[in-house]
Amino acid sequence: MTRYQYLANLLAERIEQGLYRHGEKLPSVRTLSQEHGVSISTVQQAYQTLENLQLIAAQPRSGYFVAPRKAQPPVPAMSSPVQRPVEITQWDEVNTLLADHHDKSLIAFGSGAPDVSQATLKPLWRELSRLVQHNPCAVLGYDELPGRKDLREQIARIMLDSETVVVAEDVVVTNGCHSALAIALLAVCKPGDIVAVESPCYYGTMQMLRGFDIKAIEIPTDPQTGISIEALELALEQWPIKGVILVPNCNNPLGFIMPDARKRAVLSLAQRHDIVIFEDDIYGELAREYPRPRTIKSWDIDGRVLLCSSFTKSIAPGLHVGWIVPGRYRDRVLHMKYATSSTSVPAMQMAVAAFIRDGHYHRHLRRMRQIYQHNMEDWTCRVRQYFPCDICVTRPQGSFMLWIELPEMVDMVCVAKQLCRLKIQVAPGSLFSATGKYRNCLRINCALPLNDKNQEALRLMGEAVSIALE
Amino acid sequence: MTRYQYLANLLAERIEQGLYRHGEKLPSVRTLSQEHGVSISTVQQAYQTLENLQLIAAQPRSGYFVAPRKAQPPVPAMSSPVQRPVEITQWDEVNTLLADHHDKSLIAFGSGAPDVSQATLKPLWRELSRLVQHNPCAVLGYDELPGRKDLREQIARIMLDSETVVVAEDVVVTNGCHSALAIALLAVCKPGDIVAVESPCYYGTMQMLRGFDIKAIEIPTDPQTGISIEALELALEQWPIKGVILVPNCNNPLGFIMPDARKRAVLSLAQRHDIVIFEDDIYGELAREYPRPRTIKSWDIDGRVLLCSSFTKSIAPGLHVGWIVPGRYRDRVLHMKYATSSTSVPAMQMAVAAFIRDGHYHRHLRRMRQIYQHNMEDWTCRVRQYFPCDICVTRPQGSFMLWIELPEMVDMVCVAKQLCRLKIQVAPGSLFSATGKYRNCLRINCALPLNDKNQEALRLMGEAVSIALE
Ligand SMILES: Cc1ncc(COP(=O)(O)O)c(C=O)c1O
Ligand SMILES: Cc1ncc(COP(=O)(O)O)c(C=O)c1O
Repeated sequence: MTRYQYLANLLAERIEQGLYRHGEKLPSVRTLSQEHGVSISTVQQAYQTLENLQLIAAQPRSGYFVAPRKAQPPVPAMSSPVQRPVEITQWDEVNTLLADHHDKSLIAFGSGAPDVSQATLKPLWRELSRLVQHNPCAVLGYDELPGRKDLREQIARIMLDSETVVVAEDVVVTNGCHSALAIALLAVCKPGDIVAVESPCYYGTMQMLRGFDIKAIEIPTDPQTGISIEALELALEQWPIKGVILVPNCNNPLGFIMPDARKRAVLSLAQRHDIVIFEDDIYGELAREYPRPRTIKSWDIDGRVLLCSSFTKSIAPGLHVGWIVPGRYRDRVLHMKYATSSTSVPAMQMAVAAFIRDGHYHRHLRRMRQIYQHNMEDWTCRVRQYFPCDICVTRPQGSFMLWIELPEMVDMVCVAKQLCRLKIQVAPGSLFSATGKYRNCLRINCALPLNDKNQEALRLMGEAVSIALE
Repeated sequence: MTRYQYLANLLAERIEQGLYRHGEKLPSVRTLSQEHGVSISTVQQAYQTLENLQLIAAQPRSGYFVAPRKAQPPVPAMSSPVQRPVEITQWDEVNTLLADHHDKSLIAFGSGAPDVSQATLKPLWRELSRLVQHNPCAVLGYDELPGRKDLREQIARIMLDSETVVVAEDVVVTNGCHSALAIALLAVCKPGDIVAVESPCYYGTMQMLRGFDIKAIEIPTDPQTGISIEALELALEQWPIKGVILVPNCNNPLGFIMPDARKRAVLSLAQRHDIVIFEDDIYGELAREYPRPRTIKSWDIDGRVLLCSSFTKSIAPGLHVGWIVPGRYRDRVLHMKYATSSTSVPAMQMAVAAFIRDGHYHRHLRRMRQIYQHNMEDWTCRVRQYFPCDICVTRPQGSFMLWIELPEMVDMVCVAKQLCRLKIQVAPGSLFSATGKYRNCLRINCALPLNDKNQEALRLMGEAVSIALE
């Protein structure tokens, strides 16, 4: 973090905590410069940042004042999906969204891509390039079925950060988190089975269920604490559910981190009803809190949690390196890995293993957490500014996704089509429900900085929504 | 091909054709040197090669003579598997074989790996290394669901070599031929379905069927002309078969190329019974004949052939770049690709596309075809020398696999265990049958040159088999 960012954060916190009240005059530039031992221009840059975020306002010739608070929009309420097993729809819509990602002329607010432009990724290139030149045989040859040992060792090491104690032998490398989930599902479920999911739920997971002819039952989910344990319990009593898919850390799309007590509650519920937990930790490393939140797997004593993850969000999608910790399902998982994909690309595994081993991974993560936190604040602020008043917005505890709930009457599927003509792509909420609910919601990707182009697109989005409201 | 190799091939052919008879004296070194306008040492090298192959013998002070012919071992007869749908066994055995591949101290005759040490692959490294440095964004980002367009265009181009006329839109990129087959199967079949396979059949395909709970019916297959159309027809009349999996070009493990008439016959049978053909063309590019053999897909007019292939054997396994031409199943195939694996690694696709576009691929193929042909001849010759007389050996029409049938009483599963202790790995025939038939057979990989180490291992193998026969 640069000095001015540090200072801006500090001041923003003080405003948030009420140490400076709304309408109150802030210390002069000179005073702050002396107090913090920084240059005048650093203070000016910090004040400029806060002004851009509309936290403070400059009054000509009298200095900076805390802006009158525009009320934080409320967080959406607990969801209330259809509570019976259903077949999943929406494939055509998801397919269109995926195809759109590659239209370079679109601004892709609908994508799930992280920022891959940071210099902290450079050692990864260098390593890849070095490997190709110096170890062509390993790069060109077949990999082991469970994945390269050097990588599995590094994965076991970083999993300690979430208090998840595993060894290399417990890890099975996959081509990403998506294929990790696919393998885990195929290892445990049969067509016709029922699996519980959070609602809203990442559309990729749902389309996978559809592909494997598995029915989904959507469970009410709170945007701040996660899946409703009570509703899940009720569903377990009513239906022969095989397992539950959870994204407990920096949930996609809601951004919550389940509190530890609720993680343990859902695990003991799973134990009582003898079901499996598919835990998707793909965003866990991008949590704001330090140390990063624990996984449900970290309390798993009888191997019923299949932890799935990847480096797609924490490093880059193009790697396609993910993994499963399959617990008691290791044999089935290995067989299903072989059946669906045989082995994985050695070069990418080797590069990631070296990237972690040499400390570059943790350095990169630290940087990305900061950047995403900063960007999320910026974007949230602008959403408040450009969107109509009566919206709800999530308060993500990490990662880079924002979920916005608009008044019932707004049909984001229609609005999305209009925006597409303006070369702006968004993910309408209906993709995140098996039955196409949440048509009045949208998810936007806030990974990249709010430059002029993005800001203008966001403004146009707010405008389109306002028109839809009229 | 070097001069001496050219000359050796020419002489070998003449011996084969009977122009030089067994026991006859060959032209002197000097005569040949003048006749072919090559140096004395070139002729000496050519004779040395033929002597190593035991085609000729040197008699001190009187020159070279054609060796008395040791009869070519016969080709195995048409197989006769159990002809009803069965569940597939042998997973533990396959899993062990896969794990063994990575024991660096083993001589891996059991693996399916091609030779990746040739200089003709260098442009691929250079390209990969260049991409990583100059196009990090494409390398790091998400790929399109059907795969990169530049690669699909190149694939469509090379498919013309087999008279298979497709455009980029007809091609779906996968993580290899294995995942191509998995996606194709999942797109067409449900658990409990029955699929017909050649017998013997590549174990990876069979374990995939097992993973997806699909039953296999093994069809008698001739080691020179492929699956018995008559037996397949009988099976189609008796059982509700969904489709048939065929490796018609340079079959694994038998090495045959189905004659065109039989390819067309199997297609019209499929049309009459309205079943699907899963055509696995992974070795098609390594056929000896020029131009390379046609695919069944090339005659497919109603989109019932799902062609699956990859660059695993023609370039290198570490790339994990394969493809499907899904015919009328394109939508289902795209959905199943998304469900099982989402997208593929962009870097490898980009590198392969450039490798083909710049002509390196065809150059590499030409070289590998020659090398494999040469190695196969060497290996066959040594097998004849070291193994007992009453064996049958395939006459592969391309690729680099040899299938050896031993007398019934030999149990290759046991012999393989003994050989494992000598650090020699072979693939016992039982892996290639759903019910563990072909215990008296084995497949060996002849991709690499017959150096002293390999030759000694082959000798030990022959010895172990001879002992088992006693
Ligand atoms: C919650 C969640 N799970 C899984 C995935 C898929 O991950 P990968 O790209 O590593 O296959 C994503 C990607 O967007 C995701 O958001
Ligand atoms: C006949 C056949 N099909 C498919 C495969 C798997 O190919 P890939 O490694 O490209 O997934 C092999 C590899 O050995 C094979 O021999």
